Amino acid sequence: MTIVQVTVEDVLEARARIGDRIRRTPVLTSTRIDELSGATLFFKCENFQKTGSFKARGAANAVLSLSDGDASHGVATHSSGNHAAAVSWAAAMRKIPAFVVMPRTASPIKIASVERYGGRLVFCEPTHKAREEAAEKIVRETGAVLVHPYNDPRIIAGQGTAMLEFLEEVPDLDVIVCPVGGGGLLSGTAIVAKSLRPKIKVFAGEPEGAADASLSFKSGIRKPVDHPSSIADGLLAFVGDLTFPVICRHVDGIATVSEDEIASAMRRLMEVMKIAVEASGAVAYAAAAGGKLEVAGKRVGIILSGGNLDLERAPWAKTSQL
Amino acid sequence: MTIVQVTVEDVLEARARIGDRIRRTPVLTSTRIDELSGATLFFKCENFQKTGSFKARGAANAVLSLSDGDASHGVATHSSGNHAAAVSWAAAMRKIPAFVVMPRTASPIKIASVERYGGRLVFCEPTHKAREEAAEKIVRETGAVLVHPYNDPRIIAGQGTAMLEFLEEVPDLDVIVCPVGGGGLLSGTAIVAKSLRPKIKVFAGEPEGAADASLSFKSGIRKPVDHPSSIADGLLAFVGDLTFPVICRHVDGIATVSEDEIASAMRRLMEVMKIAVEASGAVAYAAAAGGKLEVAGKRVGIILSGGNLDLERAPWAKTSQL
Repeated sequence: MTIVQVTVEDVLEARARIGDRIRRTPVLTSTRIDELSGATLFFKCENFQKTGSFKARGAANAVLSLSDGDASHGVATHSSGNHAAAVSWAAAMRKIPAFVVMPRTASPIKIASVERYGGRLVFCEPTHKAREEAAEKIVRETGAVLVHPYNDPRIIAGQGTAMLEFLEEVPDLDVIVCPVGGGGLLSGTAIVAKSLRPKIKVFAGEPEGAADASLSFKSGIRKPVDHPSSIADGLLAFVGDLTFPVICRHVDGIATVSEDEIASAMRRLMEVMKIAVEASGAVAYAAAAGGKLEVAGKRVGIILSGGNLDLERAPWAKTSQL
Repeated sequence: MTIVQVTVEDVLEARARIGDRIRRTPVLTSTRIDELSGATLFFKCENFQKTGSFKARGAANAVLSLSDGDASHGVATHSSGNHAAAVSWAAAMRKIPAFVVMPRTASPIKIASVERYGGRLVFCEPTHKAREEAAEKIVRETGAVLVHPYNDPRIIAGQGTAMLEFLEEVPDLDVIVCPVGGGGLLSGTAIVAKSLRPKIKVFAGEPEGAADASLSFKSGIRKPVDHPSSIADGLLAFVGDLTFPVICRHVDGIATVSEDEIASAMRRLMEVMKIAVEASGAVAYAAAAGGKLEVAGKRVGIILSGGNLDLERAPWAKTSQL
């Protein structure tokens, strides 16, 4: 395996490439959230990003990086949702086809989103293996370029652009907290954070039911969990072999959060901040609010990674108060 | 009765007075909303305002306008919710008491909000008369200054500051749409809009079940409706004798919207824009999206006036799609 190093220069290049296609998302704050948290929290609202999540950044960078020759047969990917929509959107921007493998259990609104952007859907069984095989088959048959949801330097560099903007807006963050699934956002964020502000602490939040990154981080050995499960359906992926070394090197801690903590975080973000954040998007805030990370009295940046909420399945009615 | 003219200069003074106490709220846009609307929409997000609604602007202006002598016995008001919280917040800022009359049917989260800001609650029957009488009694007994929710030049001038910011951010709006209840926001908005951009069209949205402003506007005679009722609980008030002449002079049209249109607008704002907007706050968008106002192809500013949503009572599960 080739070790691919992504640097802050790659992220700066990505930003030059995608800057006028993506949204510079606002950073929101709340006096009341700060009172409740005992820290000063800054929320980078990637729920307002194009396609409803940070995934637009990496997808745009990957698709716009391709040579015309490479792009001519389109792109392919497998994803539980947000990356799929983002690749479809980015491909439509470049007027090339996007072949999208989704588990047949994917959220209906995420399926609808891929369709809206013109992605060509192929359904598969909801296993990691079935997804990868279906995507490989499409690549063989069509000549499309595979755009992996996280284990790809172009994706990591693209996702890192959120942290560039964040530090431009709030340069003196003490801590940054971000969710971890496959590790693309976390890697990009950590690379930028530690390059531009070496003393910053980089933490991640992960669902208890899909704690492969947390367990792998503690043991130093990348190892999947059996049957990952969480309402945070964007964070079920197994941390990648490109992202895991970056995480081991740059990340200072990973906290796991319960389903109830995630749902309560979603609810509070809606009630107090007035924003819709999907379960995966609320995990970093749940981790910061849960008392497991050293954030007291600090200036804490939190990446709210997406907002593609299915209102029909919204879990807040069943939550306890945070 | 004295006719009190509020001018754009009063609004500029209000802004100088309150500018560092309130939030300069973001203006959000969405490609998908534009596609669905057939117009270019700009959303002024007063749901992100301090206390969760634009009411913080007027309340801050009124409370900070008082001389130390006038302020010494506190302020009093009656309100179904957002103005009550805003006056409590503004009074706490000035360290004076706020006496707040609320109908006993007020939303629990709006009651909790007043309590959080330290307002002293007095409950009354849910009628206009009972509210005014209870407030007058408090004023007599305590010497507090009454801060009316809308029929007050300081309130009108304060509410107008949202439109100042809006035109600074998006100078070339063709149309502005705002909700109307008692008319404070609409008056302030119309005064600023027509002063700074005389060709702009000023429209309002109003719930069908509380259409006093619409009916009064059409007939030219200010007249209440019997038993106003709507999920837009912030818009049940009867248009004021100070605000009505301003509306007649500057407003180009008022469209009414059904309960289902309001709920569908809330739902779409959450699903597509990823923001929580309360029913009253979604009425202007519902009006713009409902085909009753001339907005096609135009650059349309929409004031989302508040976000104090009661998730337990959220109406979107029952809505049809817009």
